[in-house]
Amino acid sequence: MSTTEIPAITATLLAAKKAKGVTFTELEQAIGRDEVWIAAVIYRQASASADEASKLLNALGLSEDLVPELTESSVKGLGPVVPTDPLIYRFYEIMQVYGMPMKAVIHEKFGDGIMSAIDFTLDIEKEEDPKGDRVKITMNGKFLPYKKW
Amino acid sequence: MSTTEIPAITATLLAAKKAKGVTFTELEQAIGRDEVWIAAVIYRQASASADEASKLLNALGLSEDLVPELTESSVKGLGPVVPTDPLIYRFYEIMQVYGMPMKAVIHEKFGDGIMSAIDFTLDIEKEEDPKGDRVKITMNGKFLPYKKW
Amino acid sequence: MSTTEIPAITATLLAAKKAKGVTFTELEQAIGRDEVWIAAVIYRQASASADEASKLLNALGLSEDLVPELTESSVKGLGPVVPTDPLIYRFYEIMQVYGMPMKAVIHEKFGDGIMSAIDFTLDIEKEEDPKGDRVKITMNGKFLPYKKW
Amino acid sequence: MSTTEIPAITATLLAAKKAKGVTFTELEQAIGRDEVWIAAVIYRQASASADEASKLLNALGLSEDLVPELTESSVKGLGPVVPTDPLIYRFYEIMQVYGMPMKAVIHEKFGDGIMSAIDFTLDIEKEEDPKGDRVKITMNGKFLPYKKW
Amino acid sequence: MSTTEIPAITATLLAAKKAKGVTFTELEQAIGRDEVWIAAVIYRQASASADEASKLLNALGLSEDLVPELTESSVKGLGPVVPTDPLIYRFYEIMQVYGMPMKAVIHEKFGDGIMSAIDFTLDIEKEEDPKGDRVKITMNGKFLPYKKW
Amino acid sequence: MSTTEIPAITATLLAAKKAKGVTFTELEQAIGRDEVWIAAVIYRQASASADEASKLLNALGLSEDLVPELTESSVKGLGPVVPTDPLIYRFYEIMQVYGMPMKAVIHEKFGDGIMSAIDFTLDIEKEEDPKGDRVKITMNGKFLPYKKW
Amino acid sequence: MSTTEIPAITATLLAAKKAKGVTFTELEQAIGRDEVWIAAVIYRQASASADEASKLLNALGLSEDLVPELTESSVKGLGPVVPTDPLIYRFYEIMQVYGMPMKAVIHEKFGDGIMSAIDFTLDIEKEEDPKGDRVKITMNGKFLPYKKW
Amino acid sequence: MSTTEIPAITATLLAAKKAKGVTFTELEQAIGRDEVWIAAVIYRQASASADEASKLLNALGLSEDLVPELTESSVKGLGPVVPTDPLIYRFYEIMQVYGMPMKAVIHEKFGDGIMSAIDFTLDIEKEEDPKGDRVKITMNGKFLPYKKW
Amino acid sequence: MSTTEIPAITATLLAAKKAKGVTFTELEQAIGRDEVWIAAVIYRQASASADEASKLLNALGLSEDLVPELTESSVKGLGPVVPTDPLIYRFYEIMQVYGMPMKAVIHEKFGDGIMSAIDFTLDIEKEEDPKGDRVKITMNGKFLPYKKW
Amino acid sequence: MSTTEIPAITATLLAAKKAKGVTFTELEQAIGRDEVWIAAVIYRQASASADEASKLLNALGLSEDLVPELTESSVKGLGPVVPTDPLIYRFYEIMQVYGMPMKAVIHEKFGDGIMSAIDFTLDIEKEEDPKGDRVKITMNGKFLPYKKW
Repeated sequence: MSTTEIPAITATLLAAKKAKGVTFTELEQAIGRDEVWIAAVIYRQASASADEASKLLNALGLSEDLVPELTESSVKGLGPVVPTDPLIYRFYEIMQVYGMPMKAVIHEKFGDGIMSAIDFTLDIEKEEDPKGDRVKITMNGKFLPYKKW
Repeated sequence: MSTTEIPAITATLLAAKKAKGVTFTELEQAIGRDEVWIAAVIYRQASASADEASKLLNALGLSEDLVPELTESSVKGLGPVVPTDPLIYRFYEIMQVYGMPMKAVIHEKFGDGIMSAIDFTLDIEKEEDPKGDRVKITMNGKFLPYKKW
Repeated sequence: MSTTEIPAITATLLAAKKAKGVTFTELEQAIGRDEVWIAAVIYRQASASADEASKLLNALGLSEDLVPELTESSVKGLGPVVPTDPLIYRFYEIMQVYGMPMKAVIHEKFGDGIMSAIDFTLDIEKEEDPKGDRVKITMNGKFLPYKKW
Repeated sequence: MSTTEIPAITATLLAAKKAKGVTFTELEQAIGRDEVWIAAVIYRQASASADEASKLLNALGLSEDLVPELTESSVKGLGPVVPTDPLIYRFYEIMQVYGMPMKAVIHEKFGDGIMSAIDFTLDIEKEEDPKGDRVKITMNGKFLPYKKW
Repeated sequence: MSTTEIPAITATLLAAKKAKGVTFTELEQAIGRDEVWIAAVIYRQASASADEASKLLNALGLSEDLVPELTESSVKGLGPVVPTDPLIYRFYEIMQVYGMPMKAVIHEKFGDGIMSAIDFTLDIEKEEDPKGDRVKITMNGKFLPYKKW
Repeated sequence: MSTTEIPAITATLLAAKKAKGVTFTELEQAIGRDEVWIAAVIYRQASASADEASKLLNALGLSEDLVPELTESSVKGLGPVVPTDPLIYRFYEIMQVYGMPMKAVIHEKFGDGIMSAIDFTLDIEKEEDPKGDRVKITMNGKFLPYKKW
Repeated sequence: MSTTEIPAITATLLAAKKAKGVTFTELEQAIGRDEVWIAAVIYRQASASADEASKLLNALGLSEDLVPELTESSVKGLGPVVPTDPLIYRFYEIMQVYGMPMKAVIHEKFGDGIMSAIDFTLDIEKEEDPKGDRVKITMNGKFLPYKKW
Repeated sequence: MSTTEIPAITATLLAAKKAKGVTFTELEQAIGRDEVWIAAVIYRQASASADEASKLLNALGLSEDLVPELTESSVKGLGPVVPTDPLIYRFYEIMQVYGMPMKAVIHEKFGDGIMSAIDFTLDIEKEEDPKGDRVKITMNGKFLPYKKW
Repeated sequence: MSTTEIPAITATLLAAKKAKGVTFTELEQAIGRDEVWIAAVIYRQASASADEASKLLNALGLSEDLVPELTESSVKGLGPVVPTDPLIYRFYEIMQVYGMPMKAVIHEKFGDGIMSAIDFTLDIEKEEDPKGDRVKITMNGKFLPYKKW
Repeated sequence: MSTTEIPAITATLLAAKKAKGVTFTELEQAIGRDEVWIAAVIYRQASASADEASKLLNALGLSEDLVPELTESSVKGLGPVVPTDPLIYRFYEIMQVYGMPMKAVIHEKFGDGIMSAIDFTLDIEKEEDPKGDRVKITMNGKFLPYKKW
């Protein structure tokens, strides 16, 4: 996946964001949603309400004509089965290395079921540290027990 | 990947854990390490020191002869490219759906680089909630900026 | 995937079922759970409670020593990426052919989100028809709207 | 698969549908066919008769010149082997998890053979529920016994 | 796929067939079914009735205890996505090269639908020819038109 | 593979064929070659002589300037490893299910070798049947014994 | 693919060959067939006549009971899609790099068709050279023109 | 890979070659290099010197402005992992079937190492034969022994 | 991957570099960074500071308007899972052949952990040698021990 | 790939090495070859002379009966297309990220050709550093220019 393969609307939004020099954190304040979710809307992995879309477009100085493109339920996913980008790959590696241990611990704490990736939030924080800053990612998903029938 | 494909040592440890009725949380207290990391040692995705291995084997009522098998640097990874187990798949899906947004937010906050999956910790908590308990996962990895040369 | 690759416990249960001449429908009555769910327990794709496991083992004339193997949260999934068995392939084909139309209709009826495959039931009925009997499959899953944050 | 990869005719029909504010349910009434089948025609996974195509184009305010594009037997299928879109993936997961149990139950009820995915219908209903609405999908396919010769 | 990966029952049947020096054509006469279908039963790609299984076992001088293994609805398919064996690969190549032309001709003759691979027979004949004998394969499958609903 | 991915020349020929309302059977008469082979020329899976190309272009009312595009030895094959189109997939399934049985029968009748897919013809006939018309496909390929040296 | 995955009969033959210190060239003289073809018999990629099998077994000091295992038409092919062994990979690379140029030259010399890999021989010679010995491989396959029909 | 996916420069050269009616054999004489190597330059799998590029362009009646495009070290390879074109596939099949036998014979003659695909030549000859012409391919590569250190 | 798939900015920079006749070594001197890293910036696998980007653009005679395209954190990676280009493939082969031995030696020297590919440098030198020049590649990466928690 | 999939001989050698407490560096001194090459022999990726094999077996206190297993030209390669082990993956990532830049620099310095992975050595050194030790890997391969013919 190269930057030229991102949807046209994403390229438009990212170009406007760069031109205005607005950060994701500033968009968070303008729209009242978390910056990761806003980035997901921009990359067309999440769909905004008309109101959220307007606020985002205004914050980026773009026309509200683009609202419908941001409220659509897009086809989601990155594409490449194993991502080659090192930053994204590390999340694949975490699943490869810690997937079974996480499964064991979650099942012991909750029983058979999964953590929802839909009723789910994800926050990214910068933890300053003299030995090197740290990325802190908090995932919070509803536990869904397997229904029996 | 079926339970019959796990390493023999893992099957031995899990059977002993079940027979003794010990939880991962109790192992955490016995060994002084986080339960996810202990599960990773059991699944041979992490290597213990001789002292940690002894404590784990003692807690499970197993012979210390198995210490060397737990201190080895194992070949890591789950195997199947796209995991079919629903619990583990959801982490793959999170990378597919939120990978690019996370990349954008991390680069804005930290510059070009990655979150380490080696200088890294992962905690799992149960958040009780009347509308359905939630799984809270905290990943904490050192940010590694790309070196220029 | 051949029948020799199924877990040992599955082979044991299926052999007992055949030897006793018990049908899935009779197991449904003995256990008080749907036959598809019971088959999923047998194939180690679902986990039973200790009580359900006992009833199933009794109905098959097997020892209750096997209870713990049926209450475990197994590693789920068939394995082959594209199934070669024609009966199972047809469900893959339905997803290939009707996946996008279903996505469009579900999004229009419910908004952005998914049908849960966890808070989910699946029934199979035989619809007699002089022109050829029909298989009627009813899937019923909770709609999970994407959480915004 | 991104929305930009859908056939040009699909994009035209979806844009007209959005511009007119017509729902799939309304198209169902205008054309006298189920909404899922109509969506399949729009995504070029099913072929309409000339009459059905006219009615659909009229309902969307489009020229009848497009009739021939809707009556063609298209090359069917989504493309990506394992779909990354979460809504569509769940149907893949159902096949992975419940494929063998369904095979066992169908064979017991019907003998060796398959459920047709061609002589087949699929309905989607919204089941309102105070604990969260549910998606009800009914698949109905002719049972095809293996011919011996 | 090597000959060591075939099911144990297949190896048993093939060894008995070789030991007795019986040909598929002779089995055809003994059982009253086509030799290709009999070979499919032996390779566990088709399921026999109890009577057909008995006749086959008798013809091969094997015990009738094996009847139940031949009446089961097996998990079907070769396994490797692209077969490496040259004889089998040629059928894959025919689909690659002539797939679209066949689709065009069948649609023109029959409308939108498929040739069934279930309500289907396949015969193999040897056509003697001084320039080199020829293999004549006749496939005969019911046309299944797509159902509209 | 969608219809938009076919070579430009194929799209031109198919559009002309549709505009003139000519069937493959009529082309068979005009050109003196089987309709499946003609369809293979149109899809650029077979190469015509200059004379055959002229006749085909004339029959479709197209300029003879296109002759050279039809006489070229094209790069052959469909592309996707496992075809998603249901009509084409069934031929893949036949190879998966009946590949080993066919191999066994052909080897018994002919010895070690293959059926040529080059010195090969393929005919498609419609067999009318009150219980549903049938597709009859006859493949006829030279048997090629493995040369020893 | 490791040496432990080769068929048992291959391992037996190679062990006998090593124990007796016989070279492929010596087997060529004993059997009257080319050493590459003999190696193909040993690796179960080619089938011998009963007479050739006897001679080979005698030359290796093995029992003639193994004759039937060498006269069977085995399932052929290496297995891994892209070979990892460097010696074998180079032949894959030659096809990747020179495949299209070879296709162009062969078509120009012979017309549309292929070089047979069945009516085919392959010789390996050592060409001594002071700057480094060279491997000379001569492939000789019948040209098969595409049949038209 | 279709002919529309070849590099633009390749299409230009092939069109000029066709327009002028020049054969590869004639190019061989004009340039003083083997026709296969020249075809490799045209398909951008090999890089020419400025002088060779000029001669080739002159022979095809094209401008010398294209010289730099032919002297570049291109990114090499066909692309599809398993080629679908039958002519090219046969070389893949040869590697699948004869790969291990060739490895065994080469190691016996030369020791551990490989045949270079870089210090390598490949010739194609037409061997006329009343029973059908034959393609003779001679590969000649330097043997490279594994260096020990 | 063909040269036409490289990002537009890469094509622009490479064309300017060629037009000016500047070598990577000269760019190294102009910019004060290693030539491999500069090539990585050009191929958009590394991101430059604004100052480094200016120097690079000046050295190539290009407008500073392109600075922002070179300071972005690009999506990294080649794409094809197994590279077909022979030069790049050899690095894949080194990992295939020497991966486990390197893992064993590194673990013995350093304990469980990895060599960073981020805090990492890579130099390429030409070692002149009368028997054939040699490529010397020096990789230098920080050892990252697995964190325990 | 798990440690249980390594060849039996490798497991034997590693167990003896562990039991004797010998390091790779000590083996280097005992055998007079580099430790990485010795590890490659142990993992059956390189073949030893009889003398080197004896010395290695003596150093590990094993019987010389194993000499022939270490002098064989093994089938080389790790197996999994994309390695999941993080240490080995980083070398895959280096090829993904720096492959094209390395290709560009090597071509500029040497012309069209490759770095040999056969006439090749690889050394691993530990560079002590107060900010964290570093892994220094030196690859040295003969440049092989593409032969023209």
